[in-house]
Amino acid sequence: MDREQLMEAVKANMPEKRWIHTLGVMDMAVQLAHRYGADPVKADLAALLHDYCKNWPVQQQAQLIKDHHLSQDVLDFDKELWHAHAGAYMAKTQFGIEDEEVLDAIRYHTSGRERMTLLDKVVCLADYIEPGRHFPEVDTIRKLAEKSLDKALIAGFDSTIGFLLSKGKRIFPLTVLTRNKLLEDGKALEEKK
Amino acid sequence: MDREQLMEAVKANMPEKRWIHTLGVMDMAVQLAHRYGADPVKADLAALLHDYCKNWPVQQQAQLIKDHHLSQDVLDFDKELWHAHAGAYMAKTQFGIEDEEVLDAIRYHTSGRERMTLLDKVVCLADYIEPGRHFPEVDTIRKLAEKSLDKALIAGFDSTIGFLLSKGKRIFPLTVLTRNKLLEDGKALEEKK
Repeated sequence: MDREQLMEAVKANMPEKRWIHTLGVMDMAVQLAHRYGADPVKADLAALLHDYCKNWPVQQQAQLIKDHHLSQDVLDFDKELWHAHAGAYMAKTQFGIEDEEVLDAIRYHTSGRERMTLLDKVVCLADYIEPGRHFPEVDTIRKLAEKSLDKALIAGFDSTIGFLLSKGKRIFPLTVLTRNKLLEDGKALEEKK
Repeated sequence: MDREQLMEAVKANMPEKRWIHTLGVMDMAVQLAHRYGADPVKADLAALLHDYCKNWPVQQQAQLIKDHHLSQDVLDFDKELWHAHAGAYMAKTQFGIEDEEVLDAIRYHTSGRERMTLLDKVVCLADYIEPGRHFPEVDTIRKLAEKSLDKALIAGFDSTIGFLLSKGKRIFPLTVLTRNKLLEDGKALEEKK
């Protein structure tokens, strides 16, 4: 399946609004990949597939995670996390994507993970700041993204954690560990200077 | 050592401001213990000792944690967490407190822990809302404390996590797990009704 066919297949699997968001993330991920030295082709592919399962009925997402023994712990948390794991599985099994870097970038685009690759970061941040996004902190994050991938990502996770606090929802521990790690890396980098 | 002698020893170990805070936490912990059915004598004792090491030089707190193999993981996080573990150790070794419930309430009064006892909750919350405390969310937490120990505690942890977010500091994962657990317990309770 070439890129065009893949795009058609993804487009056919989601409402128009989600497709427009996907195009925004693809464009932004490629920009960020160029800016920060990630592989733009991989960024484009991971972005194209990142929300493949997002508009599936949540029970279907959960069932896929259970049936194929994907990360069970996300099932105890916010439904928002499920589609990323389901999406990585579908990318591999339905579309034959074998590149683990691409699959991981899809899998961790919502939660992050402690040792994020450059590609993970690019896709995750692109999802926060693609042009269609509107939330209170988005302009601050966009500005940070011009200069620092990590600082922008931290601000993104801050906004997610702040949102969960304000809604009285549980916080996925991995997101906190990811944010902690990014802060530590930044501190270590400053101390090295 | 009777209670009066113990009070003298604690008072002599801290600046006046910290002692006034300690008296506030003792009073509030006893009130909360009566309100929610915890042991007021234990609440009083844990509150008296909760900040015993708070004004020690942080290096001394860290050294004590290292030397006696207390919870090493707190050393990777905010210094604010250290005095609680050092305090529980001193309560046991210097003052002969053997009651594990009291020692735990001292040990976890800052971070919380996943399975907080009633006494843990009472001392932790008293520390958030004693009359000398002034921070933006404190009145909301005080109001919640009149009706729900858990809801007030969740609001307390919300304020701590929000503060750490705003300061760009790392969040102690146990505090997130504690808050998640309290939210789960509340949800389970509602579903049971």
